[in-house]
Amino acid sequence: MVPSSPLPASPAPRPAFARWMGTTNQITRTFLAAGAIPDLINVAGGLPDPDVYPTERMAEIARRAVAEHPDEVLGYGPVEGLPALRDALARRLGSPALPLTRDNVLVTTSGMQALDLVGKVLLDEGGLIAGQHPTYLGALDAWRPRSPTFRNLVLDAPGFDAHRALTGAQFAYAVPNFSNPTGRLVGLETRRALVAAAHDTGTWLVEDDPYGTLLYDGAPLPRLIELSAQAAPGAPYAGPVVSMGTLSKEIAPGLRVGWIVAAPAMIQALTLAKQGSDLCTSGVTQRIALAAIETGLIEAIRPAVVALYRARRDALCAALEAHLSAWFTWEVPVGGMFVWATAKDPGLDTDALLPHALKAGICYAPSSVFDASGANRRGMRINFTLNRPERLDEGMRRLGLAVAALRGAA
Amino acid sequence: MVPSSPLPASPAPRPAFARWMGTTNQITRTFLAAGAIPDLINVAGGLPDPDVYPTERMAEIARRAVAEHPDEVLGYGPVEGLPALRDALARRLGSPALPLTRDNVLVTTSGMQALDLVGKVLLDEGGLIAGQHPTYLGALDAWRPRSPTFRNLVLDAPGFDAHRALTGAQFAYAVPNFSNPTGRLVGLETRRALVAAAHDTGTWLVEDDPYGTLLYDGAPLPRLIELSAQAAPGAPYAGPVVSMGTLSKEIAPGLRVGWIVAAPAMIQALTLAKQGSDLCTSGVTQRIALAAIETGLIEAIRPAVVALYRARRDALCAALEAHLSAWFTWEVPVGGMFVWATAKDPGLDTDALLPHALKAGICYAPSSVFDASGANRRGMRINFTLNRPERLDEGMRRLGLAVAALRGAA
Repeated sequence: MVPSSPLPASPAPRPAFARWMGTTNQITRTFLAAGAIPDLINVAGGLPDPDVYPTERMAEIARRAVAEHPDEVLGYGPVEGLPALRDALARRLGSPALPLTRDNVLVTTSGMQALDLVGKVLLDEGGLIAGQHPTYLGALDAWRPRSPTFRNLVLDAPGFDAHRALTGAQFAYAVPNFSNPTGRLVGLETRRALVAAAHDTGTWLVEDDPYGTLLYDGAPLPRLIELSAQAAPGAPYAGPVVSMGTLSKEIAPGLRVGWIVAAPAMIQALTLAKQGSDLCTSGVTQRIALAAIETGLIEAIRPAVVALYRARRDALCAALEAHLSAWFTWEVPVGGMFVWATAKDPGLDTDALLPHALKAGICYAPSSVFDASGANRRGMRINFTLNRPERLDEGMRRLGLAVAALRGAA
Repeated sequence: MVPSSPLPASPAPRPAFARWMGTTNQITRTFLAAGAIPDLINVAGGLPDPDVYPTERMAEIARRAVAEHPDEVLGYGPVEGLPALRDALARRLGSPALPLTRDNVLVTTSGMQALDLVGKVLLDEGGLIAGQHPTYLGALDAWRPRSPTFRNLVLDAPGFDAHRALTGAQFAYAVPNFSNPTGRLVGLETRRALVAAAHDTGTWLVEDDPYGTLLYDGAPLPRLIELSAQAAPGAPYAGPVVSMGTLSKEIAPGLRVGWIVAAPAMIQALTLAKQGSDLCTSGVTQRIALAAIETGLIEAIRPAVVALYRARRDALCAALEAHLSAWFTWEVPVGGMFVWATAKDPGLDTDALLPHALKAGICYAPSSVFDASGANRRGMRINFTLNRPERLDEGMRRLGLAVAALRGAA
């Protein structure tokens, strides 16, 4: 036994952190640190307007959740999630053509955890992901600990070959509804092609759908899992689509309640991964989520939320037109939370623009963070849900000043 | 573009799950499935008695958390956790000799997530863990996706050499207070030796302390991080101990609120891993946790909880004496939730005993699940916090019948 000798005040060098920790990009830290800048207009995040939270009703729901279900809410729950919530999600996300039971549903601690679990179940070190490009930053973050390789898929591009795109990948990843970051709606023919390729090649097809209910124009398109179910309509779902969602954009991100819907064998594998990740999702937040669904609260607030965000999308596009049309192009998204702007001049580097933007009091998410290689430097993601129209206009005015400053500095 | 041809009803074979998924043991599934057996007495889990939950006060705390802090509770929060909760934890876990600030604290979504994050930050594929043996099942689960190798440390064993034990490992892992699964208190000299070895070798020393406040006899021993702080008393903590805890055993597992206390550089690395794991812990549960700490609720309920569990520990040990002393030995634990029983006959296999036990209506956790290699088949972990004394007695009576049945079958 070692005696209790004095400890060395300057300890020995410690073992290195895991290798993947060295692969994160600096620009992410820059924009995460931006919160401290006074009067900053932040269009970098994917944040709801806090005014849409139904605070009073949620407070009462929270009280009742604990008072009426104390054992379920305060104790350990099943790894898969509370049976009543799994049943409610199966009803909500299923249809006669896509009959779902609780065996098709895993409750996750947020959509981010759903991505982490998919990585754990499907990726060996260095495994290949065929991912829609540009790709949601959070998905890249979730999978980085497994050091994957990426095949970039530009969906809806001329000549896109879904079969070739999926062949040999551990899984494919897409955000078909108002893709993060581009806000683009993946077209019906591309959806069909992706699903056919998944059935044909066997490759798992991960559909991430946090924004589907934030639809501002036109009718919704079928989800990938709905298209996949057409292979055997009405049969228990056993296909290759792994469909994930969250209540973060519909009611409140602070609940951290999401889900995965998939074939039962995949749900069982994901459950094993969840067991070692956080054992189970909080019963408190699961019961609140269930009440928000069952009382109709989510549907009750949706029309006002959609109207508010539609007006803000229009305000942002008008502000872009007024202040930035000389330098950027963009498409008007039919849903979601973001406009994707691309520089007309391929030499305009949105990483280089960011310090000027921060100095001018505006923070956006540069395109490099949505690219596993960091090479895409010509675009930016602009959020329109958090800020009021006059702030969006002021933000785009500031961004115009930042572009002028960058050009002057060059 | 692929035309919308009919989907093949029998899709191609899908890519294999990640390799680690094949390494889980069957016995875990057996005891997880035991919940469905009628009148089963379950001493397998580490569950609190639901009667100790302060339901009414928690319900009111939940209501106020949402009503009074809606933006913080319902929106996205900082990855590191709410500043007010980090400050409260720093005050609660620090001391004049171990001054902590929020920069030393990461809020985690349960103690299990803390283990997952440590694995992500410190383990490359196949990395070496020097772990207290036998080891908490959940820690093995959390690290399995990174396919680590294990060096088993039998703490307090004669001739235990902490320096040699830690050398070359990515990190060491110990549950010094009432170890899971053995219930053993790691002695002061061994604690000092582990800490000295960590300072000397640089190896990170992960201290997992979910049970520290469930102390039934005697005075508490200093935590490893407190001993480590003695290298530079009163200085901001920058040492090699990574100390984790949870509110699951103190107030309610359903909150899923835990923490990691460590050097700021380690907290920053863990924060990066948490960002890709669930982005942030629920504001709802964090605010409830903070109120449970700040209102003194946790301290208020502790004496009754400790008295209840002390009586149950004594009841379990009396039942073991009455029904199983011919076949097993055990130590009376001074804290925690478990008694660890070891078969006198090395040929008595507790994996083989389990089906007989389930048939008799009792479920325990066999020693094999607490061993990365699964080789330890001579022990069992018995929980005493969930069941009333008469059920503990009946459970041990049934276990005696099961042993007789196993012996008869042999």
